[in-house]
Formats: sequence, structure tokens, C-alpha cells
Amino acid sequence: MRLALVVGNTRTAEVEGISAAGASPELARHTPAADAELVAYGRPVRAPTVPTSPTGCPTPALLTRAVRELVGFDLLVVDAGLAAPTAAPTVGLGGAPAGDLRDAEPVVDAAAVFESAWELGARLPGEPLLVGESIPGGTTTALGVLRALGEQLGVSSSLPTNPLDLKRRVVREGLAASGIDEGDAAGSPLEAVRLMGDPVLAGAAGLAAGALDAGTEVTLAGGTQLVAVAALLRHAGVGDELPLATTRFVADDPSTDLDAAAADLGLDLTVTDPGFAGADHPALAGFDRGEAKEGVGLGGVLALAAREGVPMAAVRDRVEAVYAEVCGDGP
Amino acid sequence: MRLALVVGNTRTAEVEGISAAGASPELARHTPAADAELVAYGRPVRAPTVPTSPTGCPTPALLTRAVRELVGFDLLVVDAGLAAPTAAPTVGLGGAPAGDLRDAEPVVDAAAVFESAWELGARLPGEPLLVGESIPGGTTTALGVLRALGEQLGVSSSLPTNPLDLKRRVVREGLAASGIDEGDAAGSPLEAVRLMGDPVLAGAAGLAAGALDAGTEVTLAGGTQLVAVAALLRHAGVGDELPLATTRFVADDPSTDLDAAAADLGLDLTVTDPGFAGADHPALAGFDRGEAKEGVGLGGVLALAAREGVPMAAVRDRVEAVYAEVCGDGP
Repeated sequence: MRLALVVGNTRTAEVEGISAAGASPELARHTPAADAELVAYGRPVRAPTVPTSPTGCPTPALLTRAVRELVGFDLLVVDAGLAAPTAAPTVGLGGAPAGDLRDAEPVVDAAAVFESAWELGARLPGEPLLVGESIPGGTTTALGVLRALGEQLGVSSSLPTNPLDLKRRVVREGLAASGIDEGDAAGSPLEAVRLMGDPVLAGAAGLAAGALDAGTEVTLAGGTQLVAVAALLRHAGVGDELPLATTRFVADDPSTDLDAAAADLGLDLTVTDPGFAGADHPALAGFDRGEAKEGVGLGGVLALAAREGVPMAAVRDRVEAVYAEVCGDGP
Repeated sequence: MRLALVVGNTRTAEVEGISAAGASPELARHTPAADAELVAYGRPVRAPTVPTSPTGCPTPALLTRAVRELVGFDLLVVDAGLAAPTAAPTVGLGGAPAGDLRDAEPVVDAAAVFESAWELGARLPGEPLLVGESIPGGTTTALGVLRALGEQLGVSSSLPTNPLDLKRRVVREGLAASGIDEGDAAGSPLEAVRLMGDPVLAGAAGLAAGALDAGTEVTLAGGTQLVAVAALLRHAGVGDELPLATTRFVADDPSTDLDAAAADLGLDLTVTDPGFAGADHPALAGFDRGEAKEGVGLGGVLALAAREGVPMAAVRDRVEAVYAEVCGDGP
């Protein structure tokens, strides 16, 4: 099994109150780079700090790393447009960080990033592929792309209280700035990403499309951002089976209707509960409060762990060990 | 254990008859990129072909990959200045491919590459580090650096008959073009690389120096190019123990005197014989004819395999399996 972790940045994350993927906007810029380092090495290497939400809940990368230590999957970090350097080994797609969703054309290079990702996906050896993401602000750009495509699905949030009104307003402003109405990009997925998306959506969709074309088994590993990737694939005419593996935290989120998304887009849904209810460890408790929820391929690697017979208690223990390693011993 | 594979290009490889690291000069340009892909994925992904010498002997990368499949070490590909793209995940050092050794200043960015590699080495988690290389033409630039430093050690070759006269002539021309005499860069390792070296020497030396400074256990994994790295480290004032792990093919090469190098530079030598004598498989027989000899960390990973109790017969079987996978079934 190989986790392709597609990383990048969008200035949409700088909209106040829109994302929990970083303790501050400046640190959030480093979150995807730091997430990649955490999964690759078990701790930040070049990134300034461990990514946490403003309340201190650590990133899902810590959990994905814990599963990696237990199960040993391969890691392929794909740089679709990082704004901060990473010491994790990456394959670059030649993409740049995206502008704000409210710009006229936030992802000028969407088509080139998709194409480059497609080539990579098509050439990878045939090992089953999990496609995950890390991009602060990504649920908002996912919403933007869904609306541009005319899909009425909701998106989740890394915050316990989803700032849905804010996201909808940003998306409305983005559609206006791009001179399109909802649904105008139906059947034109690259147009949807170029005008309303982020580079990670282009990279993840391209990678999945290329891999599927080559006959590789692909699982979309994540929450509503991967639902947007699935929508892009469907609007690109991809007819293959599309499994989506996510966490209970996304499935339980009232802002989303995963079953509707699965029905609309023909997704085969796997939901894993890592059993953090009642946990008081800081690496786990935030998830139970509804923070973070998904990201960094978490749903996919949890499903992998479950399939390989790793008990969720072992995952939790390993998360605590990784946390101690990177954050110091005590909570 | 982590193999840091430092890759890059130098136009020195284009000197006719100087290198066997590629079936043709155009393909040799792709060799380091392809080597990285072979170790990362088990086959070329973006590179045009499996690297082979003009006689068809495949690259040591095939063997390093075989050991990786048996032992499972981590891989960190460090791009010190690649001239061709690779689909292997890499950490970039911001370096450019080097000019011809006979240019006045073939590695303009030697200091920046060293510094960037040093930072990376110093920040890596403390897992023991093997430092290997892939750069066609690299034994000639290694000779250039040794002479600039005033070290009278010899270098090996990827060709069965070492074109030593040619290498010495190129180095003489390089010294003249750079306006220095042998030994003028003694105590100034970055000057030696800038005027006579290649980006991989700068990257490997910087990575090793940074890792040693952070207390990480470092083994130089390779032949006479890693001897040049050791010389750079000694001229930089690095006093740590320096283990060098190489193959019997280098140790038996009459162009080199590894024992003298070990004595001069204070290296702790490990020589591993993978037992290819009499092998008729094309992936193995070339080594027994004196081709390739080393590269892509081979000596280091063979020593690792031996230490972990993997019989060399298992390594040979796995090499044949990897070969069949990438080159087709039959020899």
C-alpha cells in the first residue's frame, strides 16, 4: 500500500476564522510541509513546529504517522504547490501556491498540475494507492469547486463549529470574482479548480485519474476534500469504482451528508472509528471534541490498519508514543 | 537505518570514455534520476530506461533495491543538482547540475549546497545514516577534488578498465582552468568542490557533517567517491569516526588503495563481497567482470544485509527477481 499525500497551500486559509489547520495564520502556512515531515520522519524536521489547531489539538498527521509505524505503508509526498519548504522527500508537480478563492483565477496552473499528476499516477508501479491531502483552507476551496461544478454537497471543517456561513460567503464572492454562477463549470473540472479550487485538488484528481487509467487500485483517503476530488473525477468522465475511506468524525459531522455524496458520486464508503471517545490525551481528545476530523489520509490509513488486524487500541497507544516523541512526555 | 542517496549531474560525464554509468551519454544524464526511482519503486517510473553500462551491466541501484526489499531501510533521496527529472521523492538542496571539471568554476553553488545539506543532516531524526551517491562522471570529479586537496589517493571506475590516463589529463586541465595547483585547496574543502568537484560531493559532505554534528551515526556507503567525501570532511576539520562501507569490487581494484585511504583519512573500513563470482546472470556477471563496482550506497546496504543476517544468496536471488521485474524474464 502506498499513501500519496498531496500537499500545497492556498491563500484562502488566510481568511480569518476559516481554518484550524495551524495555531496561527503564519504557522498554518507551514502545516502541509510539517504534516509531510511528520509522516515521513515522525517529527518536524525543517518546519518550525508541530501543526496544531488554535486550541492545541495536533494534526491528523500524528495519527497517520502512528499507523505508518504499525503497518509500514510506503509514502509518496506530492508537492502540488507548497508555500513553505519541507524536508520530507517530495515529487514536485511544478505547481505554485494558490491565490485566494476570491481572486478571479486562484489556480492559474490547474491544468498543468493535473496533467503532471496524471503522468505520475499513470507511471507508478501498480501497488494500491491511497490518495490523501494536507492544505489549510482546503474545505473552503472544496466547497468552491463543488459549487462551480453544480454539486450541492456540504463540506466539513477542521474547527469544532463549522464556519459555514463564512465559507458560503467566501464561495459566493469567489464565484462573482471569477464571473461564473454555480454549475457553470459542470463537466469542466479543470475550469472549476482554476477558478475556485486549490492545487491539491488538481494534483489529487490528476494522480487518481492517471493511476486508475493504468489499472491501479485507488482509494480516496479523507473527508469532504476528497469528495470534491471524486466530483472532479466524475465530471472528468472517470467511471471507475471510487472507494472513499474516511473517519467517523467526518461521517458524524452534521454539515456533511456523506451518504448523499456517496450516492450522488457513486462512492464506495468506508468509515473507521478510531475510538477516541472519552480519551483525555491531548493528541486524541481534540478529535472527540470535533476538531481536525480528517486529513493527511487518516481515514484511509485507519481502514488499512483495521484491515490488517491492528487493534485501534494499538493505534491509540502509538499515537501517544509519537506525541511524546515530538511534543515531550506529558500532556 | 536510513539511506541518504545524494544524486546530481556533472558535465564531466560527457567526456568521451570516462564513465560507464549509462548506455549512451544522453541516457547517462538520466542515470541518477533513474537510480533513485529504482531504489524508491523497484523500477524506472519517469526515467526513460533502466540504467546500464554500454555493455549492458545494470546499475548497482538494482542491487540496492534488492537489499531494500529484503531489509526495509528508509530511503532519503537528496537532489544536489539533477539534470533530468525524477519521479522519486526527493529533498532538494537548491543546487544546479555542475559544469565540466575543466571549466574554471564547475560548481558555482558548492557552498550553498553544502550548507543546505548540513542543515538537513543536522535536523534529521537520529536514525543511523548511510550516505551514498549516484552521479555519472563522479570518480573523475572525486579525483579532481582529491588532487585539489593535495591527497594522493587513487580512484576507481565504473568501467572494467579504468581510463586513468584520461582522468588524470582531465584533472590536470581542470586544475589549470581553475588556476590552482595540486594541494592549493588543502584545508578549503568548499573551494576544492567549487573548482574541481560536483554537487554530489558537496551534498554528501554537508549531509554527513551536519548529521555527525547532531550526534547521528554516519557511514559513508560507497567507493572512491565516498573517499573523496571523507577527505572533504577531514579538510573541514571533522574529527569524528568515519566508517566507510564498500564492496569487494572497489577493494580489489588495483587503481585504488583503500587501506592507504583508510589510514590517511582515519576511516574504519568494511568490505562486503556479495559473492557474484561465476554468476552468469546479466545483473550480476558484469560486476564480476569489474563493471560498475559500487554506487547507490551498495557497499553500505550489503554490509547492512550481512549484519542483519541476510545471506548473500538471498540477495542474489532477489536481484534476479528485481531484474526480471524491470527488464523482463530472461537474461
